[in-house]
This record gives sequence, structure tokens and C-alpha cells, in this order.
Amino acid sequence: MRKQKSDESKLKVGIVGFGTFGQFLAKRLASKGHKVIATSRTPYEEVARKIGVEFFQDVDDFCEEHPEVVLLASSILSTESVLRNLPVQRLKRNTLFVDVLSVKVFPKQLLLRELPPEVDILCTHPMFGPDSGKGSWAGLNFMYEKVRIGADPRRERRVENFLKFFREEGCTMVEMTCEEHDRQAASTQFITHTVGRVLGTMQLRSTEINTKGFEALLNLVNNTTNDSFELYYGLFLYNQNATDELERLEKAFDTVKKQLFGRLHDIARAQLFPMEEMGKGPSGNGNGNGKAAATAPVPALPAAREPLALPAGKDVYAPSNTGTIDV
Amino acid sequence: MRKQKSDESKLKVGIVGFGTFGQFLAKRLASKGHKVIATSRTPYEEVARKIGVEFFQDVDDFCEEHPEVVLLASSILSTESVLRNLPVQRLKRNTLFVDVLSVKVFPKQLLLRELPPEVDILCTHPMFGPDSGKGSWAGLNFMYEKVRIGADPRRERRVENFLKFFREEGCTMVEMTCEEHDRQAASTQFITHTVGRVLGTMQLRSTEINTKGFEALLNLVNNTTNDSFELYYGLFLYNQNATDELERLEKAFDTVKKQLFGRLHDIARAQLFPMEEMGKGPSGNGNGNGKAAATAPVPALPAAREPLALPAGKDVYAPSNTGTIDV
Repeated sequence: MRKQKSDESKLKVGIVGFGTFGQFLAKRLASKGHKVIATSRTPYEEVARKIGVEFFQDVDDFCEEHPEVVLLASSILSTESVLRNLPVQRLKRNTLFVDVLSVKVFPKQLLLRELPPEVDILCTHPMFGPDSGKGSWAGLNFMYEKVRIGADPRRERRVENFLKFFREEGCTMVEMTCEEHDRQAASTQFITHTVGRVLGTMQLRSTEINTKGFEALLNLVNNTTNDSFELYYGLFLYNQNATDELERLEKAFDTVKKQLFGRLHDIARAQLFPMEEMGKGPSGNGNGNGKAAATAPVPALPAAREPLALPAGKDVYAPSNTGTIDV
Repeated sequence: MRKQKSDESKLKVGIVGFGTFGQFLAKRLASKGHKVIATSRTPYEEVARKIGVEFFQDVDDFCEEHPEVVLLASSILSTESVLRNLPVQRLKRNTLFVDVLSVKVFPKQLLLRELPPEVDILCTHPMFGPDSGKGSWAGLNFMYEKVRIGADPRRERRVENFLKFFREEGCTMVEMTCEEHDRQAASTQFITHTVGRVLGTMQLRSTEINTKGFEALLNLVNNTTNDSFELYYGLFLYNQNATDELERLEKAFDTVKKQLFGRLHDIARAQLFPMEEMGKGPSGNGNGNGKAAATAPVPALPAAREPLALPAGKDVYAPSNTGTIDV
């Protein structure tokens, strides 16, 4: 009796799209006693066999195995065509579909539109992957929305069993709408990836004098460029909040540049028009800048050999901060 | 005899500029048995007393104590005026001057220009601070250049004793010219701080669905904004390589944006001019884009409800990468 109850929580999970992430999830599901089958256009028999997963090259054969859960682990850009090529009619009518894409409104709408009304839908986003989830999943975030689950208690139990797998691995379970996910992910994951891509494009190099902060950035670049550009592009194209966040990033960059160059301009101007001169000199014909510049050229900035006279009023012996910083 | 030898390695260090970083170094120097005195315009008697440091409000009194090492720990922006206000004539002629600024060519030139030829000069940059060097200094980088050390063996020994303090704390000692330091620091520390400042300006917020990568960025923002804007501005103004690096960062950002939007443009164009139409249709009067757009408007992008038909040729069942990423 007890044995039977324990077996009930074990699921038959069919993974569609057996790339890096599909394999990553399959491995852990199989190791926890779930029956895992997989399909992919690329023949992954060998990889599958090694991790205890039955592989089906033929997607009709795959569906005829009647997995209780169909887990979509295809890329964002290909999920739509993957779903359209899936012979859903060969599955049991009450199958649970789960996606694990890094964007959420798009698959939610796609699954609601493409799948028959009998099918259950759970949208999820494990906020980690093969790198950050290599060892334990403890404390790593797992977002989900129960988009459409039939009222049958067995269906509700099936969803709970699926979620239980992640909960028992130590994930922090976050129930959230797909819409809210996409808002938050645009200002977190998409921005993180954009920073990683930008710094990767700069080809930053490790030096002998790295700070801890710089090493954190190098680490970010490595993790980001481990992912394909397709993937990053998916975050941009399929999350409608991404464009706004990219714009916010650009504006912030402009603000910082203005702070740096605006200040430089103030210093140069202070050298051109020292306070005592301001009162005495002729006011000019509205072209004072050009005239003064002709008689007192601005030194090349920044000039290390002849350091700039900085605005007065600094507390020279007790700087509010330090000459060395530790980021 | 042995005792005397051990005492020889203990130095009398006078710290000029007793802000956060000066106190940070003073504490550790004093705890390792070095005699530490300090001066600052702000009366830091209380702070100094607590960490076993003798404080002199009067800078002449400070110099008359004849510290063997004068350690400049003032801010980058104030170091020039600090040095000009220092009654160097009250010090012993063979004093060793050490700076710990985050830029190096500027203090090197300043010290060479302002100090009498009898004075020894060591330029250093501990690549850490009160945050990252809170516990152990093991593995943290310490850069230095022996800019001008008199040939007297006692002077050479004094420099080595000073460096030994950092070496024994576990620092990775990096001997490097100030010029090379500034080249490397511009593409490492200055870029790190710029990214931190930009993201700080965006006011990124922690969410329920943070990834590890995003948390690394939040951490960077916190550490960066712990430092004053003056300090960041010093890295920019007094390192002549900083402007070039800022430009490289800007160009990299533009490149990434072009990759995103250029690709979007390709997709939109593919929808306007499908391959089969390209052969058949009239070539137009060099204004094909406008004409086609009038009859087949581009859908709003990104359109989650009606996802874009993506360029064909994707391996739909075996994505080269995954739908979930873990940065």
C-alpha cells in the first residue's frame, strides 16, 4: 500500500527538444526515479541511453508512448514550429504540457492557442541552467504559472507532483503570472545578458591587477557567451518589455557620460573664467567663450603632467572618500 | 641579537589623509606591530586612538615626528593640494613616500616633480579596499613600482620591509610600471565602475526571480555606489586611458544594439518580401520598400500574440541551445 502511494508521485515525462537544457533536466528527473522519454530531430540515442532516457527519433512514436507530461525544452525561436509539428492527436487527451522557456507570455499564448482545450498547461521558468545549477539547486528560483489545469483532482495532483520535483531539489518556488515574469525578467535577466554581451564584444581581458569586481564581470561574460546569440535574441524578440529596458540602459549610460563630461566642461570653464576675472572683464558680445578661449587655451584634458586645478573647497586632509576602491 | 633584527622590519608609518582607506590600512599596519601616526584636517583623534594610531591635527607636528614612511591616502582629486600643503622640510631628508591611489601615472609624475631629490618614492595600488579586503588579503592583488629608491642598502631594506607587510598578509605582489597599470586599470577597474554606475542609475531592483548572474550585478552596483562619485570621477579624469575605454564600451553597446535591431529588420523585410515574391514581383522604381509596406504592413514587433515567422532552416527538434539560460 505504502509502496503504491510512493510510485504515484513518479511521472512519465516526455521531453521535446533534447538540447543542453533538455538533457540537463532529463538527467535529474531520471535520477529521481521519474520515467523519462525524449524526442529530437538530431539523433541523441547515445546521450539519452547514458542518462537512462528512452529516445525516439520519430515524434509519432514518442507521442504514442503517452507521456503524462510533455516538457517543451526547445529554443525560444523554434518552439512555435516544434509545437505545430507535434502530433498532439496521438497523445492522451488529458496530457500536461509544460514549457521551460526564458520568456513566458509568448509560450502561454502559443500553448493556449495551439493546444486542444482538454490539455493542461503549466508555464515555468527555472531561473538557472547547466552552469549555475550544476551542483545543488538549493535556493535557485523556479517560477511557474498554472495556466490551465482541469478540475479533476488527479490532474491537480499531477501538477503538484511535477512541481514537487523542483521543490524537493531545493528550488525556491515562485508562483507568478507570465506577464509579471516578463516584466521582471526584462529588467533582470535580459539586462544581465546585455551587459555580458556588451562586455564580451569589448573583449575584456584578465590582467595581473584584476579586482574582485572585475572578476565578477569576466565571469558574467564567460557565462553569457556560453549561451548562443539565438538565445539572447529570443529574450529580446519574445519579451515585449525588453526594448524598454534596453532604452533605460542606454539612457543610464548617457547620464553617466554626461556626469563625467559635464564636470570636465565645468573645470575647463573655471580655468577660462577664473572668479576674479569674471567680475572685471568685458562682458563681450555674447561670444565670450570663443574670445576667452583664444587668449587662454584649455589644456588638453585629462593632463597628467600638468594636473588640472580642481574646483576649490575640497577638504584636502580629510577626503570624504579614499584614493583606492575595491570593486 | 635576534630580537633587534625582528624589530628592524617594523616601520614608523605616517598616514596623510585619514579617510576610510587610510584608516583601513592603518588598522592592519598597527595590528602587525608597526608604529602608525596620522594626520588629517578632520579631527580623527577618537577613531585613531581606538585602532592604536597617534593622531596629529597639526601637519607640522606630524612631520616633526619623523615617520620613516609617509603614506599618502588622500583622494585622487585632493592629493596634489595635500602634497603642496605638506611641510616636507620638517621630515627627514631620506623619507620614503608611498601613495596608494587608484591611478598611477598622475601621482608618479606629481611626486617626482614636487618632492626633493633625496626623498624615496614608491607608487602602489592595493587592488582592494575595506569591502573586498575586509577579512583576509590572501590572493588580492597589490601593484607597485619602485619609482625612485636611493642606492643606500638601508633604503632598499626599508622598501622591502614595507612591501613585506603586504606580502605577509597574503597579497599577490605585482611589480609593474605606473604607465602599464593605468592602461590595464582603464579596461578593468574603470570599466567595472562604469558598469556599476550605469546599472545604479537604472535603479535595478532585486526581484523574486533573480538569477545568479543578476545577483552578481546587484552586488557590483552596491559596491560601486558605496564609493563616492568623486572617486569614480578621479579614475576618469586622472587616467588618460579612461576616455578610450569609455569609447570602446560605447561602441560595443552600439554593436550589440545593431545585432538586435539589424536582425529584427531582416525578419521584417523577409515578411515584406518573401522569397517566392522576390522573383515574380515588379522590381519597382527603386522605392520597393515603401510600396510593399503600403500593401503588407509590418506587424508591431515584437508581437507575442502573433509571433513572427522566423527565418527558415532552424533545426526545430534539436536546438543548438536551450530555452532557459542561467546567468
